[in-house]
Amino acid sequence: MSSAVLPSGQRVALVIEYDGASFHGWQLQTGSAVRTVQAELENALGLVAGQPVRLICAGRTDTGVHATHQVAHFDAPVSRSTRSWLLGSNRNLPDSIVVRGAHVVPADFHARFSALSRRYLYLIHNSPVASAIAVNRVAWVRPELNAGAMHDAAQILLGEQDFSSFRAAACQSATALRCLHNMEVRRQGELVLIEMQANAFLYHMARNIAGALIAVGRGLLTSADLAELLQARDRRLAPDTAAAHGLYLTGVTYPKNFDLPVYSPGPIILQ
Amino acid sequence: MSSAVLPSGQRVALVIEYDGASFHGWQLQTGSAVRTVQAELENALGLVAGQPVRLICAGRTDTGVHATHQVAHFDAPVSRSTRSWLLGSNRNLPDSIVVRGAHVVPADFHARFSALSRRYLYLIHNSPVASAIAVNRVAWVRPELNAGAMHDAAQILLGEQDFSSFRAAACQSATALRCLHNMEVRRQGELVLIEMQANAFLYHMARNIAGALIAVGRGLLTSADLAELLQARDRRLAPDTAAAHGLYLTGVTYPKNFDLPVYSPGPIILQ
Repeated sequence: MSSAVLPSGQRVALVIEYDGASFHGWQLQTGSAVRTVQAELENALGLVAGQPVRLICAGRTDTGVHATHQVAHFDAPVSRSTRSWLLGSNRNLPDSIVVRGAHVVPADFHARFSALSRRYLYLIHNSPVASAIAVNRVAWVRPELNAGAMHDAAQILLGEQDFSSFRAAACQSATALRCLHNMEVRRQGELVLIEMQANAFLYHMARNIAGALIAVGRGLLTSADLAELLQARDRRLAPDTAAAHGLYLTGVTYPKNFDLPVYSPGPIILQ
Repeated sequence: MSSAVLPSGQRVALVIEYDGASFHGWQLQTGSAVRTVQAELENALGLVAGQPVRLICAGRTDTGVHATHQVAHFDAPVSRSTRSWLLGSNRNLPDSIVVRGAHVVPADFHARFSALSRRYLYLIHNSPVASAIAVNRVAWVRPELNAGAMHDAAQILLGEQDFSSFRAAACQSATALRCLHNMEVRRQGELVLIEMQANAFLYHMARNIAGALIAVGRGLLTSADLAELLQARDRRLAPDTAAAHGLYLTGVTYPKNFDLPVYSPGPIILQ
């Protein structure tokens, strides 16, 4: 990150962290009074620019869903250093949103269309009693989960597949084909962590996968049932969508030539 | 924990977790409208009992200070199973307080006077930018901290010492002698963890020790300065008290004969 002043019109990529519990999701809702992450960020950047700024993000998150590493870009309407965009926007943001970094990117960089993959983490607090410290930052599941069985079943979902059984009815994507690169489930004390990486996710896909894996962990669904569910391509057969506040967008990968630095994971809920 | 009904008058110990950011500390403030942890718990237990219940805790925490393992006892005014106290109180508590367990204890058990030691964890997020996910659950320190130097200096404080330099002006304890059993400072990614165990802590002692160690980590204070500060027995010479929201009461130890179970640490902010 440099403090050299950018010529106006330069494209800037931001790495953003937010507590989803405070917002009605990422997307701006024009004409509505609800708080969204995009609206807060565009307002903060607009105060730095002295004129309106429009942001495009890598993955629009739902109400309650958190991010430790969302990526969004905008075209700087005025000359400011990346340091000014970073410090100036953070000064104008609520505590529940932080810009972690600002980087100049080429004009052909697009936060959404250039992204090669997205990573999500689903955090389950698996305990007879809920957590007061982690409330709204984990999903609470009382029945004991078999994380090993969840991990094994999750491998069925890898590769390019039709994820119709795992997308919300309201999903507007033209195709339900997505390529799941990595699925890992592991226990860490009272927590069960589900890590997922895919080229892209359908609407509610991460939460629907988490919901199905929770059913596997409880012994309500076998690996064979999960394979059948995937083949059926019918959302109505799938278990409940898992709670939004367990989900974190933890990373977005871009082609190396865009030269975006790797961020260490920030502090989240663990044990 | 048994579901057998207790004769009334039996003493019950609770293990309690809370998010200190939501409360004006532990202690009931009679005639005031502020929310305190004690008031919420006594209200919840009173609804289960159908009559007032008075709680005594191991360590009264300040506004903003969290607990994953506070201990408090009460004398049950009516016959209820420990399971009823647990589930009933949790049903009547806000999300920011959870009773993790309820246990029958002998009449000579006293949450405060029977305690052999208290453990505290101080969590520092050491990063150029703050965390949106962990806000109010960690103390944010921008300048890079040398955790090794902090750990080495902290060893000076071990043993029975006069902690006058580390107690608040308002502290009402008759003596400033306390015995520090363990001090450990370590880095974990962007976090610096300070773990402290003592027979008891003076008012603001844990936060004043954390404040002094942060000064050591920044290179503003040497080990020799810290030793001198301890010898001086003068609070006015010490660095600033560290922020309340970085502090967690994580455990209280009692003599083995009270037979209280060991609790696993619940999920907190880590990375």
